[in-house]
Amino acid sequence: MRVDGRKSNELRPVTIQTNYLTHPEGSVLITVGETKVICTASIDDRVPPFMRGQGKGWITAEYSMLPRATEQRNIRESTKGKVTGRTMEIQRLIGRALRSVVDLEKVGEKTIWIDCDVIQADGGTRTASITGAYVAMVLAFGKLMQGKKLQSMPVTNYLAATSVGIHSEVGEILDLNYIEDSSAEVDMNVVMTGDGQFVELQGTGEEATFSRKQLNAMLDLAETGIDALINQQKEALGELAASIPTSNKGREEK
Amino acid sequence: MRVDGRKSNELRPVTIQTNYLTHPEGSVLITVGETKVICTASIDDRVPPFMRGQGKGWITAEYSMLPRATEQRNIRESTKGKVTGRTMEIQRLIGRALRSVVDLEKVGEKTIWIDCDVIQADGGTRTASITGAYVAMVLAFGKLMQGKKLQSMPVTNYLAATSVGIHSEVGEILDLNYIEDSSAEVDMNVVMTGDGQFVELQGTGEEATFSRKQLNAMLDLAETGIDALINQQKEALGELAASIPTSNKGREEK
Amino acid sequence: MRVDGRKSNELRPVTIQTNYLTHPEGSVLITVGETKVICTASIDDRVPPFMRGQGKGWITAEYSMLPRATEQRNIRESTKGKVTGRTMEIQRLIGRALRSVVDLEKVGEKTIWIDCDVIQADGGTRTASITGAYVAMVLAFGKLMQGKKLQSMPVTNYLAATSVGIHSEVGEILDLNYIEDSSAEVDMNVVMTGDGQFVELQGTGEEATFSRKQLNAMLDLAETGIDALINQQKEALGELAASIPTSNKGREEK
Amino acid sequence: MRVDGRKSNELRPVTIQTNYLTHPEGSVLITVGETKVICTASIDDRVPPFMRGQGKGWITAEYSMLPRATEQRNIRESTKGKVTGRTMEIQRLIGRALRSVVDLEKVGEKTIWIDCDVIQADGGTRTASITGAYVAMVLAFGKLMQGKKLQSMPVTNYLAATSVGIHSEVGEILDLNYIEDSSAEVDMNVVMTGDGQFVELQGTGEEATFSRKQLNAMLDLAETGIDALINQQKEALGELAASIPTSNKGREEK
Amino acid sequence: MRVDGRKSNELRPVTIQTNYLTHPEGSVLITVGETKVICTASIDDRVPPFMRGQGKGWITAEYSMLPRATEQRNIRESTKGKVTGRTMEIQRLIGRALRSVVDLEKVGEKTIWIDCDVIQADGGTRTASITGAYVAMVLAFGKLMQGKKLQSMPVTNYLAATSVGIHSEVGEILDLNYIEDSSAEVDMNVVMTGDGQFVELQGTGEEATFSRKQLNAMLDLAETGIDALINQQKEALGELAASIPTSNKGREEK
Amino acid sequence: MRVDGRKSNELRPVTIQTNYLTHPEGSVLITVGETKVICTASIDDRVPPFMRGQGKGWITAEYSMLPRATEQRNIRESTKGKVTGRTMEIQRLIGRALRSVVDLEKVGEKTIWIDCDVIQADGGTRTASITGAYVAMVLAFGKLMQGKKLQSMPVTNYLAATSVGIHSEVGEILDLNYIEDSSAEVDMNVVMTGDGQFVELQGTGEEATFSRKQLNAMLDLAETGIDALINQQKEALGELAASIPTSNKGREEK
Repeated sequence: MRVDGRKSNELRPVTIQTNYLTHPEGSVLITVGETKVICTASIDDRVPPFMRGQGKGWITAEYSMLPRATEQRNIRESTKGKVTGRTMEIQRLIGRALRSVVDLEKVGEKTIWIDCDVIQADGGTRTASITGAYVAMVLAFGKLMQGKKLQSMPVTNYLAATSVGIHSEVGEILDLNYIEDSSAEVDMNVVMTGDGQFVELQGTGEEATFSRKQLNAMLDLAETGIDALINQQKEALGELAASIPTSNKGREEK
Repeated sequence: MRVDGRKSNELRPVTIQTNYLTHPEGSVLITVGETKVICTASIDDRVPPFMRGQGKGWITAEYSMLPRATEQRNIRESTKGKVTGRTMEIQRLIGRALRSVVDLEKVGEKTIWIDCDVIQADGGTRTASITGAYVAMVLAFGKLMQGKKLQSMPVTNYLAATSVGIHSEVGEILDLNYIEDSSAEVDMNVVMTGDGQFVELQGTGEEATFSRKQLNAMLDLAETGIDALINQQKEALGELAASIPTSNKGREEK
Repeated sequence: MRVDGRKSNELRPVTIQTNYLTHPEGSVLITVGETKVICTASIDDRVPPFMRGQGKGWITAEYSMLPRATEQRNIRESTKGKVTGRTMEIQRLIGRALRSVVDLEKVGEKTIWIDCDVIQADGGTRTASITGAYVAMVLAFGKLMQGKKLQSMPVTNYLAATSVGIHSEVGEILDLNYIEDSSAEVDMNVVMTGDGQFVELQGTGEEATFSRKQLNAMLDLAETGIDALINQQKEALGELAASIPTSNKGREEK
Repeated sequence: MRVDGRKSNELRPVTIQTNYLTHPEGSVLITVGETKVICTASIDDRVPPFMRGQGKGWITAEYSMLPRATEQRNIRESTKGKVTGRTMEIQRLIGRALRSVVDLEKVGEKTIWIDCDVIQADGGTRTASITGAYVAMVLAFGKLMQGKKLQSMPVTNYLAATSVGIHSEVGEILDLNYIEDSSAEVDMNVVMTGDGQFVELQGTGEEATFSRKQLNAMLDLAETGIDALINQQKEALGELAASIPTSNKGREEK
Repeated sequence: MRVDGRKSNELRPVTIQTNYLTHPEGSVLITVGETKVICTASIDDRVPPFMRGQGKGWITAEYSMLPRATEQRNIRESTKGKVTGRTMEIQRLIGRALRSVVDLEKVGEKTIWIDCDVIQADGGTRTASITGAYVAMVLAFGKLMQGKKLQSMPVTNYLAATSVGIHSEVGEILDLNYIEDSSAEVDMNVVMTGDGQFVELQGTGEEATFSRKQLNAMLDLAETGIDALINQQKEALGELAASIPTSNKGREEK
Repeated sequence: MRVDGRKSNELRPVTIQTNYLTHPEGSVLITVGETKVICTASIDDRVPPFMRGQGKGWITAEYSMLPRATEQRNIRESTKGKVTGRTMEIQRLIGRALRSVVDLEKVGEKTIWIDCDVIQADGGTRTASITGAYVAMVLAFGKLMQGKKLQSMPVTNYLAATSVGIHSEVGEILDLNYIEDSSAEVDMNVVMTGDGQFVELQGTGEEATFSRKQLNAMLDLAETGIDALINQQKEALGELAASIPTSNKGREEK
């Protein structure tokens, strides 16, 4: 039995509120249980120096938490004068994941800035960020298409993320909240596409290890969760959902 | 006629949503027109080194904007590696203003951390921060009283803030939005108490100057606005409002 | 009775030594009582990126204290690796104040760097910096005119600054020294032009508040002080003083 | 056919030279093909603040490259004034991996500082660092045991790491060199114990995705490689190798 | 013939104004030609961590230039956020030089902070700083003795510094001004004691080299200059001069 | 008798292994006793901004130590976020020394980046760095000549460095190891050319002074040591040695 009564393969309640802010080209407030993240997508008509002149776009992400998103107040990274290693890892992960489902040549020389700001944290902030940021990004591309600055949707696939883990008493579980995350023996973040292919797998056993069999059990849970998340993304996107291709390549191959 | 149709002495619509987040001792989402700020108050059982051993409390504030709170995306201060001069000015102002209406000896050796995070900006973010942070702080003190960690409310007065300015066509105006702020000749932030006394006055004419007569006209507008804001604070605080003393000292003396 | 025997409306002795250094285009050593500040104005033939191509000039200021300008030695900001919030506030204030009396279009694409370095501090260092920097800036413009790099004086008005405050025993006072500043209930910095208009008003009551009546009393004192300071500026500038327009616009309107 | 003629499941030549430096408690020069890393383990008799008073030890890692370890010279992180996100990710990975096979209670209140300095880079520097750092750490513990500062070997298992990936023409391959790494569609780092359990799995498809079937093929290769690496670690450790427990728990369960 | 008409072995005019500032325990304005440096000595009743508990004192120095001390305005190191290599070299040199003539055991657990702030620069700022700082330090020790916080003068010798160099046309010269310094082939800073012994020798030929014979010619000039500087120090110190021992050890041995 | 049994004028065993790494244009592992330094020379086809358009090359050096090069582990400068004063002094010294024997006009608009990374430290790391870096630089120029990117060797002279010092019991000694360096009264680094001319002289007596006679005794030792080091450089360079001019100018003049 899980700490909040959920079944092993049960996600927390998820909501995705689109166009949450007025200024960004795309914005979303995603809630996964008590975790709340504001995700925005901003369009910049330049690319970073290392990308110039290639006619391709770029997607980069930043992640932050409000100081009191957590039980204990955290010192702001602006006050520390530097970004922590944890933040950098998450930022790199979000950017990499989104780039894997975008045809950057179609985007042209633009940068999509993704900002994920955690308003309230209860575990799974990085996976909620990816799931929400995907929607904010599609909204922003939709706006570019509407303004005739983009001919067609450059997104090649759906994409969502969730966490799975192993708990000593409950076994393999889906979508860990903060209490579960703190006591889990193994913690794995999984980013998958709409056709069941992996984009990122990050599994860690800080004071434990895991076998191939346990890995497979966790990946099965992740697949279930990500299917449900992608359904919510489709609903949130409304008409825009139709502009994104779907396939079953990953599933057939399995 | 103002850009959004308001009268010279008219505030934008204001809402104050209390207990917006679950973790902080006090939290508020304040909206003033399109400006939205999350204000939290966190209790820390230590004081900074320069205050130790005096038996008194301390109140300190931090202020930040989400990168896409504004029309153009701003670079995060954590990425820059330093806090800008503008942010520091605002943080110092918020802390100073709140300390002026708190009996720090009653608080005892505790630090109240105020965090004001601007989710969306449309002018007046620093004054909205003060008005909202005041409520978050009173909520946090209320929680301490409830938990018997404080005997009585250490707040000695109401406190709110607004901006006034001079526009070349419209003359003196109250509560400037972003468009008004950008084109105003004179911009003044006013922090006042519930009895009509000044706590802070910051008036600036970047490319213009102002006379004593204009100053007085602006201060009259500010007083009207702050009275209305304090009424909203009382409503938001509900029963807690009764724990804060009110007087008319400032008004009588005028 | 004030701590140094002055009357409420009495400035400390002021001297302004022009051309104090050989390298800068304009330089001044200003002393206000025991407060001593070296103010220099340097001409740079470029403007910052955000001003380029507009054909206008820019004025920016930096402020610093020698480590032992004060009773206790302060750690250098270069050693700390960052500029404090107090310094940034003062720098922004000095720059804003000077820009308010200069026709930047007449200056053309040049930056005037103002450096105010406090050699000895006894209260009022920011207002002494403004008063001295104004003279250094006019001297630098004079040099440009002499070298035919500027056709006419781009300065539109006189400008000086002083502090006023409220002391619990003495009441409203002009030009606070360090001891008075430390014990004042209210502290206000006032920047005014030669015709009695306000450029900046910054009034703060850290653990006290002030009424409209007290505000008016302080502003009367400030006006007296600034008139005297401007007379000293005129004397220091000698022949150059004639190149600056004077009016009574502000006073008549009062 | 791979670029350097290796078979899909073939490691590059590996050497582990122990006691490479005179000062550190444990040190190793590990070479994997043209990749060369100096790994040292230093004992500090204190633990970081968050670990104090728990009677447990801590293991932390730092990673760096000489500026000219690579084809193009890199700017030093000390010159930049900050550590990059990539470095932080690697440092956190190395520390986490080593902690998973050490009984920190047996270590007592000591910190083991692991330093991995890449002298020459040709792909796989992070996995070579883990494999080499493991040996340096065991040597350091051996020295503590010799000096009677530790009663028994606190290491609970062998541990090594390698990379696997998918190349569009060659398919799944083991131990990618720099050219292979640059052109691979999927790149995965695997850290495993001596009994075939996973400690870390980090798989990434920057512009590609991978199926469950491909994942399994890569994991089979990783297992082969890690077995070979652990054999080399045993040889390098000589007599000390006997002090580390071995089991087949992971393999049996598969 | 030198650029300013001086003879090869002629110092520029030197003045040492003592007690230039009111707050520091010791302070001096030293001018060497157009070079002007404010040197202060501050007493701190603590020593840095690495010196604690040894019953000995410490002397440390900081050096800075006003931005417009030079022909071209320099960016402040506080703005850059770091101290340059040149500044660090000079600071270390000043501290080392002063420590060589002080009996730190006599000082007890105190830190003497030396601050050298260059108001105007025309070559030789580091040697003027040493010569001036020595006097400021002796004044500070004098004050401690007067206040009975020190029983006797802990200074064991006189100490002054000057520069010498080789100019392609003029040959070996003493006390280079900025123009000479910029065009010299060899530049050497010499710090000597009152009895003609060396404390520091720093000779550099950036695009030239120098022979043993040339070295000896430069050292002869340096000795002449330092003798003259020490005479000025004695005059500036007045009665305090008598508290410092003098010997001829260095000269006799030559 | 010296601590390691050497005679006063005896160098430690020196080896210079050329082409130690595969990527850099020039690389060397130099060992002087237990001191080991990797020196590399990298060619960059640009020069720093202040050198552009002059048709001349530039040589710049960076120096670092591995954290455990020393008896006690040092904190990395990248972790501190800044380079220490000691490192900056050494970097400036290495760059200056090498530039003194290169005809930068012959090099053309190229930057030679010298990196000296100390793998193991036992005194004399900065002088070993200079001696090794000289060889790495000549190798890099040789490669440029081979690739027809340089017509002739731009190096005008041999160059090596060593330390000398005064030990209270042993007197003047050559090439101090760490123990000798820690206990020496006077420490002097000497950089000389192949014809016995000085390039740099840096002599320091932290708690002692030295006479002209002692200086001359130290310089005699330095000359002996540098002659021997240059012989080793010639041997290491093999055929390239012939491309560097030799003269006896310095010696004849003495």
